Amino acid sequence: MKRILIQLDTDPLASVFDRVVAVDAGVDELFSYGSVSPEAAVGLTHGAIFTRKVADLKSTAIFVGGSDVQAGEAVYAKVLHSFFGPMRVSVMLDSNGSNTTAAAAVASAGKHLALKETQAVILGGTGPVGFRAAQLLASQGARVKLVSRHAAKASEACVQLKLLELPGTVSPHVSTSFEETIALCAGADLLIAAGAAGIEVAALEDLKATGIRVVVDVNAVPPLGVRGVESTDKAKEREGMICYGALGVGNLKIKVHRAAIEKLFTSNDLKLDTQAMLEIARELTALA
Amino acid sequence: MKRILIQLDTDPLASVFDRVVAVDAGVDELFSYGSVSPEAAVGLTHGAIFTRKVADLKSTAIFVGGSDVQAGEAVYAKVLHSFFGPMRVSVMLDSNGSNTTAAAAVASAGKHLALKETQAVILGGTGPVGFRAAQLLASQGARVKLVSRHAAKASEACVQLKLLELPGTVSPHVSTSFEETIALCAGADLLIAAGAAGIEVAALEDLKATGIRVVVDVNAVPPLGVRGVESTDKAKEREGMICYGALGVGNLKIKVHRAAIEKLFTSNDLKLDTQAMLEIARELTALA
Amino acid sequence: MKRILIQLDTDPLASVFDRVVAVDAGVDELFSYGSVSPEAAVGLTHGAIFTRKVADLKSTAIFVGGSDVQAGEAVYAKVLHSFFGPMRVSVMLDSNGSNTTAAAAVASAGKHLALKETQAVILGGTGPVGFRAAQLLASQGARVKLVSRHAAKASEACVQLKLLELPGTVSPHVSTSFEETIALCAGADLLIAAGAAGIEVAALEDLKATGIRVVVDVNAVPPLGVRGVESTDKAKEREGMICYGALGVGNLKIKVHRAAIEKLFTSNDLKLDTQAMLEIARELTALA
Repeated sequence: MKRILIQLDTDPLASVFDRVVAVDAGVDELFSYGSVSPEAAVGLTHGAIFTRKVADLKSTAIFVGGSDVQAGEAVYAKVLHSFFGPMRVSVMLDSNGSNTTAAAAVASAGKHLALKETQAVILGGTGPVGFRAAQLLASQGARVKLVSRHAAKASEACVQLKLLELPGTVSPHVSTSFEETIALCAGADLLIAAGAAGIEVAALEDLKATGIRVVVDVNAVPPLGVRGVESTDKAKEREGMICYGALGVGNLKIKVHRAAIEKLFTSNDLKLDTQAMLEIARELTALA
Repeated sequence: MKRILIQLDTDPLASVFDRVVAVDAGVDELFSYGSVSPEAAVGLTHGAIFTRKVADLKSTAIFVGGSDVQAGEAVYAKVLHSFFGPMRVSVMLDSNGSNTTAAAAVASAGKHLALKETQAVILGGTGPVGFRAAQLLASQGARVKLVSRHAAKASEACVQLKLLELPGTVSPHVSTSFEETIALCAGADLLIAAGAAGIEVAALEDLKATGIRVVVDVNAVPPLGVRGVESTDKAKEREGMICYGALGVGNLKIKVHRAAIEKLFTSNDLKLDTQAMLEIARELTALA
Repeated sequence: MKRILIQLDTDPLASVFDRVVAVDAGVDELFSYGSVSPEAAVGLTHGAIFTRKVADLKSTAIFVGGSDVQAGEAVYAKVLHSFFGPMRVSVMLDSNGSNTTAAAAVASAGKHLALKETQAVILGGTGPVGFRAAQLLASQGARVKLVSRHAAKASEACVQLKLLELPGTVSPHVSTSFEETIALCAGADLLIAAGAAGIEVAALEDLKATGIRVVVDVNAVPPLGVRGVESTDKAKEREGMICYGALGVGNLKIKVHRAAIEKLFTSNDLKLDTQAMLEIARELTALA
């Protein structure tokens, strides 16, 4: 029976990136939809669950994507709500690549640090990748400083994360300058830069004195967030710190993405969102 | 040569249901279009007929679907009108699943009744499935009471059906209550409930005394049209009557749908609409 | 690794014609997009180049099409501009089929004429096919009279072509009647009629005296541009001239189109536009 993946994208044109990865993950037929609203997701989901026998439903799955994370979450929730008992299919959420990227960033850091004893600083902690990275680190027991340029946003993000009752801790912080960022990094082990594109927020040479051991910058287009890191860095030692750039993390991100797609077709009741991606990423890094 | 099915859907997002069935029917490449207007259908049809040799055109076919039956019929007519002599492909019309569902409902009843001697009552006879079921029953020689809540609509539907000069008869009737429905069923053999979702129009216990022997309710979501029938009923005896629910009919509906898709690729000049679906459904039930 | 073709179409519904040809050219997965703007092309192109290793990028390619040639050129330019060094894929431009049709028309003429010594007259020389045919003929050293009903348009088209510094010559001409057209053909060898659909611009019987030896009419729907030619003509001798109609050229056009698609997957850095199509067409006619 052919493996069908139904791509529900909230952008007008469904992501080519997600389509190529799906094809390379062995999907036989890819049904791609753009401009998908939660309302439209109901009928599309019914088409997925009412066309094959329950025993065959593991060969059909749904992927929710698009650049808008909130819109994707609304579609994802509606998909899950449209199932009837055993008539359901596995679903993956990865709007803006945020779950797979955050998982790859955290798993990369986990190769060098014991995450449950890690003090982490996340710049751009209210953005799609930063927020998910904070969640994943806290899920591993880390103490996380979630940093934003806006105090209210940082606080709100931490409130949301605390609702998840994770073993680690998250605290909101504000930084609008290199100096404030350096001060926040004092005594920390890990810095993840996940802020807006094209804005430098720190420099490697200033971080040397803080105790930071691992730097991950997920920004692909120069200038990167941390001056001195290059996008191709992959466990590259610079100024005594281990550095990862966007492409260095991207390779693992794509592997996680593919593995998650493959996993969708092992059962008809999986929900692959943030936490599941980290498990996949850690398995992949353990194997490597 | 790969079998290409071109799905022209009048809804903004092409039906997942129709896509899964097409894949499971062995289509190699599915070109899915949403928001298809009759005007747009011309160019799309020309693309279908001008790209392969006439001898190879049986490997290309067109499926017209979407929730709006009238819109689908307009597209279907335009497709047929866009052919040039031998440069044509086979076409199937199944907007809202109405043709395949009506065929499955009538063929299911035909397992228990001699249709040409049957007196049938169709509730929701002006809707997509009810109207097609009335047509199919009359095509087999049955006497059909086509019931609606609106007298004018019922009359108009019967006028349209009479233009087809079918061997059976159709007559318009109005019912707005359980009592009126029961009265219409007196002396009839078959009741098909195809009305609007979520509205009860009769109860099995009241039908016992009417002489009805087979009840088919094509409504999938509770409450069904006939109280006492369950959506999974498939030739289930209840109160002395043989009952079919939407899922009980749905299995045959999907088989008809798949078989029709397969048939499209046996020739380049087939027009598979209402009547053709019944022939397929009767073949399938005869084999079963 | 599966061969993925990304079809960027500037029309709302991506061309069925281009999709069928792509499938028949052996593409494994076709990602079809409608209503593609230059802005949207950036993200779609990034999805193409950031998902596979550079060594594998020859298995991904982009096709730009749609009825509006200018819109297609804008998307094509944006695609080429979105590559980063070795992270690029091969791209083909064939809006309105203009490049493949022009190449097939010119290559057909080239079977009977030495193009570098040919004097050609192109009616509808400012339209999508006529303009490209003029370019291709001039690229082979021919002297081309580019004819339009509007002097300013003809002049502008010639200015554009002269910027390409081709070995042949192009000169602008106006014709609004059979008589003017016949006068322009005096002493010429080749007439290509590529004007608007449904408008007769000349008659074979009047062309006899001009010296024209080959007539190509790319209009498919009667009345054709040159009275006396039939759309199925393929090197058909009429009134002492060798005639080609749209379907006679169309067979070669589709072969060129398919061969170009196949060629896209031989490397990750090809740009297949007007000139490349002629090379393919001439190879195919040399082999035939």
